[in-house]
Amino acid sequence: MSELHISAADLAAMDKRYRATFVNCLSGAKSACVVGSSQGRRQQENLAIVTSVVHIGADPPLLGMIMRPHTVRRDTLENIQQHGIYTLNQVATPWVEQAHHTAARYPADVSEFAQTGLTPWYADHFDAPGVAESPLRLAMQLRECIPIALNNTQLVIGQIQDVWVDEAAVNADGQVDLAALQIAAVSGLDTYHQLTPVGRFDYAKPKPPYE
Amino acid sequence: MSELHISAADLAAMDKRYRATFVNCLSGAKSACVVGSSQGRRQQENLAIVTSVVHIGADPPLLGMIMRPHTVRRDTLENIQQHGIYTLNQVATPWVEQAHHTAARYPADVSEFAQTGLTPWYADHFDAPGVAESPLRLAMQLRECIPIALNNTQLVIGQIQDVWVDEAAVNADGQVDLAALQIAAVSGLDTYHQLTPVGRFDYAKPKPPYE
Repeated sequence: MSELHISAADLAAMDKRYRATFVNCLSGAKSACVVGSSQGRRQQENLAIVTSVVHIGADPPLLGMIMRPHTVRRDTLENIQQHGIYTLNQVATPWVEQAHHTAARYPADVSEFAQTGLTPWYADHFDAPGVAESPLRLAMQLRECIPIALNNTQLVIGQIQDVWVDEAAVNADGQVDLAALQIAAVSGLDTYHQLTPVGRFDYAKPKPPYE
Repeated sequence: MSELHISAADLAAMDKRYRATFVNCLSGAKSACVVGSSQGRRQQENLAIVTSVVHIGADPPLLGMIMRPHTVRRDTLENIQQHGIYTLNQVATPWVEQAHHTAARYPADVSEFAQTGLTPWYADHFDAPGVAESPLRLAMQLRECIPIALNNTQLVIGQIQDVWVDEAAVNADGQVDLAALQIAAVSGLDTYHQLTPVGRFDYAKPKPPYE
């Protein structure tokens, strides 16, 4: 193998599109979620793929995502800020192409559900739309939007209110089998992967003489 | 399939360990990076696995990670805050067990490189240690630590200074083939996966009549 070294100057000199493609790969495997939001129950539903969902804590159960105020996801961010609720729906490999298409820039009054054929799904007590096809759906309550001045993005943090998941995929100790649910991983801007487990390890403890 | 509904009350009532295992799975696929840091070139090297690395932007090239000030990763966070530099090394499937073991709580003066058998690697111009075994290494400059008051964590943001990657894995348009590099994905706290591509799609554009 021949190892390539790319310097900060090389990164700065890259063509804009090449750099976006390249740098988006450097964080490694990413989750693929579609974010469901609306202007009210069954009103102006929006669906947008987000690949920056990150675990922030288990107690309280918090997830963050990085959003850019001035892009296609503006409708989603406005809905979340106005109504304080949204859903996160893990994307599964059988419908990655539909999930990817939610990134297209439709007018605000066009539903990405209708354009992709994905099916809006509502819990009785929660007015943001989930995706019926998703094997792992979360109802989220907005907790905080933290501005990131470095590049004018925001870390949008929500608290998990409800989880819907196939009972058979939850192990006795609480582990959810993402591979069994066919949950996808993304690399870069556009490449979707399936997951195959290669190992599960015990809680890491120091070896002798440091145990 | 039987769909399980877990409410906010159910989450709050869970056994602490069960909840940590369960909630850590809900964000979906996660990247696996080991963070290299030190007290100076070849001085008190530290290595710690982090599964919360998130893409923040391509220009400037920024990556974030969520760190908890009062856990095992304290040495790493202190090194980063004192010296302003660190490395991010994508974990590959042949050495996931070694990467996982970097989470063990060793005394501050014990190197996780020595305990795991992973090999410290230095660029001439950069004094934080990388991991020789990693197929995708990044030299990072700290830009900002943003406190997250909700659960006393921090979003640690760094700018990518240098990238080292196998030339054969970088496509003509800048896409890095993570699967070819055997880069791992994590779910939850302890389960590692290999990636298999299932689809790559064009930049999403609206369908007629919205094109």
